[in-house]
Amino acid sequence: MATIQDVAKHAQVGVGTVSRVLSGKGYVKEETRQKVQASIEALDYTPNAMARNLFFHRSGIVAVIVPEVGHPFFSELVSEVEKALCEQGCQTMICNTFYKKNYEQRYLDMLKQQRVDGIIFGAHTALDVSQYENIGRPIVAIDRTLGERIPCVSVDHAIGGQMAAEEIIYSGCKSVMQFRGAKKGEVTTPSDVRHDVFEELMEEHGIACRSFYSNWHSLDINYYQNYADELLEKYPDVDGVFATDLMAMAVLQSAMAHKKRIPEELKMVAYDGTVGAGLVFPKITTIVQPIEQLAREAVRLITDLIDEKPLVNHKVTLQVTLRRGDTTVRR
Amino acid sequence: MATIQDVAKHAQVGVGTVSRVLSGKGYVKEETRQKVQASIEALDYTPNAMARNLFFHRSGIVAVIVPEVGHPFFSELVSEVEKALCEQGCQTMICNTFYKKNYEQRYLDMLKQQRVDGIIFGAHTALDVSQYENIGRPIVAIDRTLGERIPCVSVDHAIGGQMAAEEIIYSGCKSVMQFRGAKKGEVTTPSDVRHDVFEELMEEHGIACRSFYSNWHSLDINYYQNYADELLEKYPDVDGVFATDLMAMAVLQSAMAHKKRIPEELKMVAYDGTVGAGLVFPKITTIVQPIEQLAREAVRLITDLIDEKPLVNHKVTLQVTLRRGDTTVRR
Repeated sequence: MATIQDVAKHAQVGVGTVSRVLSGKGYVKEETRQKVQASIEALDYTPNAMARNLFFHRSGIVAVIVPEVGHPFFSELVSEVEKALCEQGCQTMICNTFYKKNYEQRYLDMLKQQRVDGIIFGAHTALDVSQYENIGRPIVAIDRTLGERIPCVSVDHAIGGQMAAEEIIYSGCKSVMQFRGAKKGEVTTPSDVRHDVFEELMEEHGIACRSFYSNWHSLDINYYQNYADELLEKYPDVDGVFATDLMAMAVLQSAMAHKKRIPEELKMVAYDGTVGAGLVFPKITTIVQPIEQLAREAVRLITDLIDEKPLVNHKVTLQVTLRRGDTTVRR
Repeated sequence: MATIQDVAKHAQVGVGTVSRVLSGKGYVKEETRQKVQASIEALDYTPNAMARNLFFHRSGIVAVIVPEVGHPFFSELVSEVEKALCEQGCQTMICNTFYKKNYEQRYLDMLKQQRVDGIIFGAHTALDVSQYENIGRPIVAIDRTLGERIPCVSVDHAIGGQMAAEEIIYSGCKSVMQFRGAKKGEVTTPSDVRHDVFEELMEEHGIACRSFYSNWHSLDINYYQNYADELLEKYPDVDGVFATDLMAMAVLQSAMAHKKRIPEELKMVAYDGTVGAGLVFPKITTIVQPIEQLAREAVRLITDLIDEKPLVNHKVTLQVTLRRGDTTVRR
C-alpha cells in the first residue's frame, strides 16, 4: 500500500507539500497541486488515519463530556456522536462529569496536553466558562453556553416550549406543573428557554403554573417514583404536566396507579423523544429533539475546528418536532 | 509536587526501583522497599497517572466495545464502567460495533499497537474468537464467551431464566412467548442460557412456549411497536411474555392499547432492570442484572491484567434479583 512518502517521491515534492495538498491548508502552487493529485491517483493512495494523525501530531481522539451517559438522552446522543466520529476516522472518549469540577478539569488538561484533539461538551459546566474560552483548542458545546467563542449546537427550545404550551392550552388545563432541569441561574443552557417560554404562555392564558426542579440526571427508579407520587398527592388539582422523558414516565406511572383518567383528568407533554419513553401507555405527547442531527452537527464543527477550517456559523439551531400521543386532547 | 525522580533521589535508589515498589511487580529487597516507602511518605508523593503511563509505555485508555451504547442496558453499563475506570485513573474509549466486523478489528488493532491498554468487550463478536485468544493483551468479556483464556463477567442467567419461569408458572400461564436476543448458534453468549432454561421449564410444566428473535439493539420505537402489535394479533391465545426491557415495554404498550387486563389476561416478566422500564404502569415484574457490579468486576479484571497481576478467577458470575411488579400474580 502506498504511503505519503511514496506519493512525495512519485510527484518529486516534499512530504510537507503532499500533506498541504491533502489537508487543503497552506499555500501550494496550482501546478504542484495537480502533480501531487496525479500521483495520489496513480498510486491509489488512501490517507491512513493513523499515519495522518502521527504526521499532524494528533491523537485521533475526541472527548465527549456528558453529565451521565447512562441517562437515555445522553446515551442516544453519545451513540450518534460515536457513529459520526467513527466515520471521520476518530475515536470517541467519554467522560461522565456527574457535576464534578475535577472531572471536567481533567479533560481540559488532556486537551491542553494534546492527548485529545477536541472536546464535545454536553454537560453543565461547573467551572468558570472563561476556562473554555481561553483554552484556544477545539471545543464544541451541545446545548450549553460556554461563551461567545465556543460554537454551540442546540435545538430551538423557544419553539419547543411554545409547542408544549400550545398542547397544554388547547387541552384546556387550568393548573399545570413543569419540571426544570436545573435551578434558574445555576447553570446556563439554552434549554432553560423552553421553561421560560412555557411559563410565560401559561401566565398569558391564565393557567396556574408551578415549576419544580428535578435531579434529572438521576438513574434511580425510586427517586422518580417517590418524587412523582409526592407531588401528585400534594397538588391534586394539577391537570397538566410538562417534563423530560423519565420524569414524565414517572408522573404517568403514578397517575395511572392513582386511577387518574388520561387525558381527561391529567394532560402530559414530554420532552426529548428517547426510545423508552416512546414505549409507554398511553403514548405520551412529546417534543422530539433530533438527536442524530445534534450529534452530526457537533461532529462537523469539531472536525472543522481540528482541521483548522474557518467556521461559517458559531450557533447551529435545529428544529424540534411534535409527536402527538394520547396524553393531550386530539385536535 | 514531588515526582518519581524526587522519591528516587530521596531514597537514594533508581527510578526503576521506585516504580517496582509502586507497581508491586518485580523483586525489591524488603529493606529498600521500606526506604522507598518512607521517602514516598516524607515527600507526600502521589503517583501521577500520566507520568506513570509514560513510564510504563501505557496510554491510560481502556476501550469498551458494545453493540450500541444508546441501548439502555449498555448505556447504564458503560456509565458504570467509565466511573470505575475513572477511579483507577483510566480514560474510557467507547466503540459501537453495530455488529460490524471491521469496527471490532479496528479496536483489536489499536490494542495490538498499544494505543489502548485493554479492551472490555461487551458486544456480540462477529469475528472468530481465536482472534481474541491469540492477541496476548488485556481483554475482559462482559456476558460474552471469547474462549477459555479470556476472562468473563456475567450474571447467573440460568437462575435468571428459572426465576422468570417460576413467576410465569405460578401465575398460571398456558401459552407463552419469549424473545431471544440472537438466533441459536449465531453468537455465543452466556445469556442464551436463560432462554434455554426458560423453555425447558415451560415444557416440563406443559406450557406452550414460542420463541421469537428480536433485533434487541434497535433504538427504533416503531420497530418495537409494530413487532409487538403483530405478534399479539397473530397469537391472541398468548397469556405470558418473557422479554428484555424494551421489548417487554412494547408488548405491554400494545396489550394495554388492546385493553388486555394485566395480569389477568397477560402476564409479563422483563429482564435487565434498566431505569426507563422501571417507570411504566403497571410495574413490570423484572429480573434485575446488577449492572454496577458487572462493571466493577470487569474493571477490576482489566486493571489486574494491565498491571500483570495473576487472575484468581477467570469466570465471575454475579447474582440476579427478582423485582416483583404487577404483571405477575402476587404470592
